[in-house]
Amino acid sequence: MNPDMIESTQSAYAYPLLIKHLLHTPLVHAPDQEIVYRGETRLTYRAMSERIARLAHGLGRHGTKMGSTVAVMDWDSHRYLECYFAIPMMGAVLQTVNVRLSPAEIAYTINHAGAQVLLVHADFLPVVDAIRDQLETVHTFIRIDDEGSEAVAHSIPFADEYETMLAASESVYDFPDFDENTRATTFYTTGTTGLPKGVYFSHRQLVLHTITGMAALASPVSGQRFHRGDVYMPITPMFHVHAWGMPYIATVLGVKQVYPGRYLPERLVGLVRDEGVTFSHCVGTILHMLLGCPEAKTVDLSKWKVIIGGGALPHGLARAALDRGIDIFAGYGMSETGPLLTLAQLQPGSETLDADEQVRLRCKTGLPLPLVDLRIVDEEGEDVAHDGRASGEIIVRAPWLTQGYLKNPEASDQLWEGGYLHTQDIANIDTDGYVQIVDRMKDVIKSGGEWVSSLAIESLISLHPGVSEAAVIGISDAKWGERPVALVVLKPEFAQAVSEDDIRNHVLAFSQTGQISKYAVPQVVKIVDRLEKTSVGKLNKKRLREQFA
Amino acid sequence: MNPDMIESTQSAYAYPLLIKHLLHTPLVHAPDQEIVYRGETRLTYRAMSERIARLAHGLGRHGTKMGSTVAVMDWDSHRYLECYFAIPMMGAVLQTVNVRLSPAEIAYTINHAGAQVLLVHADFLPVVDAIRDQLETVHTFIRIDDEGSEAVAHSIPFADEYETMLAASESVYDFPDFDENTRATTFYTTGTTGLPKGVYFSHRQLVLHTITGMAALASPVSGQRFHRGDVYMPITPMFHVHAWGMPYIATVLGVKQVYPGRYLPERLVGLVRDEGVTFSHCVGTILHMLLGCPEAKTVDLSKWKVIIGGGALPHGLARAALDRGIDIFAGYGMSETGPLLTLAQLQPGSETLDADEQVRLRCKTGLPLPLVDLRIVDEEGEDVAHDGRASGEIIVRAPWLTQGYLKNPEASDQLWEGGYLHTQDIANIDTDGYVQIVDRMKDVIKSGGEWVSSLAIESLISLHPGVSEAAVIGISDAKWGERPVALVVLKPEFAQAVSEDDIRNHVLAFSQTGQISKYAVPQVVKIVDRLEKTSVGKLNKKRLREQFA
Repeated sequence: MNPDMIESTQSAYAYPLLIKHLLHTPLVHAPDQEIVYRGETRLTYRAMSERIARLAHGLGRHGTKMGSTVAVMDWDSHRYLECYFAIPMMGAVLQTVNVRLSPAEIAYTINHAGAQVLLVHADFLPVVDAIRDQLETVHTFIRIDDEGSEAVAHSIPFADEYETMLAASESVYDFPDFDENTRATTFYTTGTTGLPKGVYFSHRQLVLHTITGMAALASPVSGQRFHRGDVYMPITPMFHVHAWGMPYIATVLGVKQVYPGRYLPERLVGLVRDEGVTFSHCVGTILHMLLGCPEAKTVDLSKWKVIIGGGALPHGLARAALDRGIDIFAGYGMSETGPLLTLAQLQPGSETLDADEQVRLRCKTGLPLPLVDLRIVDEEGEDVAHDGRASGEIIVRAPWLTQGYLKNPEASDQLWEGGYLHTQDIANIDTDGYVQIVDRMKDVIKSGGEWVSSLAIESLISLHPGVSEAAVIGISDAKWGERPVALVVLKPEFAQAVSEDDIRNHVLAFSQTGQISKYAVPQVVKIVDRLEKTSVGKLNKKRLREQFA
Repeated sequence: MNPDMIESTQSAYAYPLLIKHLLHTPLVHAPDQEIVYRGETRLTYRAMSERIARLAHGLGRHGTKMGSTVAVMDWDSHRYLECYFAIPMMGAVLQTVNVRLSPAEIAYTINHAGAQVLLVHADFLPVVDAIRDQLETVHTFIRIDDEGSEAVAHSIPFADEYETMLAASESVYDFPDFDENTRATTFYTTGTTGLPKGVYFSHRQLVLHTITGMAALASPVSGQRFHRGDVYMPITPMFHVHAWGMPYIATVLGVKQVYPGRYLPERLVGLVRDEGVTFSHCVGTILHMLLGCPEAKTVDLSKWKVIIGGGALPHGLARAALDRGIDIFAGYGMSETGPLLTLAQLQPGSETLDADEQVRLRCKTGLPLPLVDLRIVDEEGEDVAHDGRASGEIIVRAPWLTQGYLKNPEASDQLWEGGYLHTQDIANIDTDGYVQIVDRMKDVIKSGGEWVSSLAIESLISLHPGVSEAAVIGISDAKWGERPVALVVLKPEFAQAVSEDDIRNHVLAFSQTGQISKYAVPQVVKIVDRLEKTSVGKLNKKRLREQFA
């Protein structure tokens, strides 16, 4: 052996970073800790470990082997968590199907991934029944039923049912060692243009995302942290980049986990109350909806920590959440990035900051996680100053970013141009290390030769008490090139009380105090009934620009 | 590309786990945070980063390149921290020389590692001068001076001086990418028998130890944690398995770091007070000494967290530390294991336990870290029950264990027999996941066919108010095979007041309440002036057995 180069794959000491190794800790620290589904089904980590073995045996009987792809269509459940482990641990690939796509898109992604086995919750029988003839690679359908699932007429030749399959299987499985670079999961992104694109992650990448995410989430002094005493519930679908990787982190922490099934506001709020949930994550629109639902008014939310991702955290929402005692903060990442890149945790010493200043920091894009080599570069590819002003594109390296788009070398090369992943987000970074995204590259508004941050204006509009949601887009203008236009949805109770001029004056006031420049004030404000969203709940600015062109 | 196997070394997205990547976070989060040496020298992370570049340039001028070995003999300092980064980041190997070894052993380890460059603090000139003719591979000597270092007569042809070398170098260095399995560090273990043996760690291993250690240390609910608001000071020498890897963790956390130079009790206590140190780690004997020094009596230690490792944490010491407000807990690992394997952090919900129960848990060997596959196996290699009683040898896998002993395939094979690293520690594990070592395999006492835990008896003896230190060893006995004998050092103020019978009766009382069995009570107690230690401050039971045979 060359003593300066250590061969790590075949010797006694070889330790590939495999997903199975994430289970060592909870099974020793917390074997009797609970995993709860909809408040109805409860199992322990020990029991889950046995069910993971049973699931692997069952899938093996149905032909799943090293390199197979198994697609899952389920609500957020303990079963999905079992799939997160069992399928990759067999050496197979887990495809988490985005159930919010159109039936045609769902068929496209399953065919493109080449899934051979499809697990389908009863609620999705109509969809799968409709696309069954289009599915080119699936040879085995396995049904998932919840207690009380209604019988739906369909023609799908199910080979098995999830619980029946587990009951018929052994509770011990000798999961093999293999190369840590083996693909573990795949998921399709939903851009606003073109066909969905597949991102994919290896065992090594998921393990490194989990451990580094855990380190970042645990290490603040007090707030904005995820620790061993928390109770976890995702409110980001488990099909969406592994629910931001959080279920893996929760499992290593050995905490109580609560899976809510379908996202019904009263159920989510009820689980926070009844199961004592203390840590969640979701997009801003979901929290906005939850805080507005009648059930939420009577529940104590003061022990709840919530990360907002999938888009900027508006100041208005942050303020409303803090008023309810929620420890809210932003996180940032994309499907392509595994996803965690930054977290807007407060730096040590920030406990003494006033509410406004705290809101400002909690709404920042955040501090980069360990090992994340995050750069903000100008058009020449030079790093901009860390002064909180100079802006450029975020480009990034980290040990857990997708290697590219599945079977799409052209888009992959573009993504990874020059050895860094290009996020297409325009941002600045301040002296304390906080990144602040000002816009998506394609949403950037350039007015009179100056850049206008649509996100910054949306956040200011959100501070108006009558505003429910806002979108700012650029509209062509002969004189200025582009001008910002604000589209605003009012809270129902303010429908008659607030005018478009009121909103414009509200923003104008911020330009008068110098917080934004004059040309950033939208010339036109339009009050609308709703704002077009993508399948994952983000503003669809492309559609909005088309609508209001 | 085979879509199921992701090649990770040559593509745009390749991200080898290299030590240089640990610096991204502090340089963004905390560039102006301080690193303090002896309370005299202060620099920022930004300045340290420049000094790391300068050090690499300087060492490069003296012939260091990819694969070279650079040996360091220094006290704990900011310079040593710079070496932790610069030397491996160049692709060279850092040898941390154990300055407590005999001159002949030091020469042996430097020759065995094949170091070409030796950095020597002025305090070690006499040692190096004495062994200079025996050094076979060193071609360049570089001197380290502290302000006020005294001139010592010597004949070492120094090529440079540390600060002069840095001053003459550029502050930017383009550290290259290379294979993450490249060796980064080497260090020689000091067993009680035979020649020192070299253990060694790759970049990948150090990065994984750092991030996983950070995750484990940060994630408890409140106490026994290392977080971003702490002030760190090692009291485990930096030559000893990278001071347990903690300086790397502290750097990623971006906390204030305090390096104490030589370990003088009044200086250490003074730094805790003056620099606001909140997190340290050391062996029990050092903390014992610190608590006993006059300076410590007047210092507020109630914000100090201390991990005790390198041997069991005796109940008596834990109690004394808790009485001073110190958040004390045990950790476990060995030179061969990188070193962190377990930490005796309290589980969520333990806050309400009474003092005795807390002491019991804090003195346990601890909970395994994430990714650590720790098993306790009986003589047939079968896992023992997790019932807190059944005992066997700890065998372990983790992504950061030494691949073997340098240039010693025989000992390496023995260490890694069957694909697990054999610790030679006998332990049990309870239902809450706490490991408890009962003895080193070679220190095990077998009396009348039953195992006696010397560590358990030592811990009970330590609870006697008159006892300073204790060692329990097995002495041959015609009837019983072996009998336990206790060797006890009394606190000076109790020298006349406590008899050997008193100690024996103190232990006997525990057997009467059933805490230990009758045959575990030492038949003979001997009060002695001191107990033989190894160079790293552990009880040298081999020597003690010889002395008292």
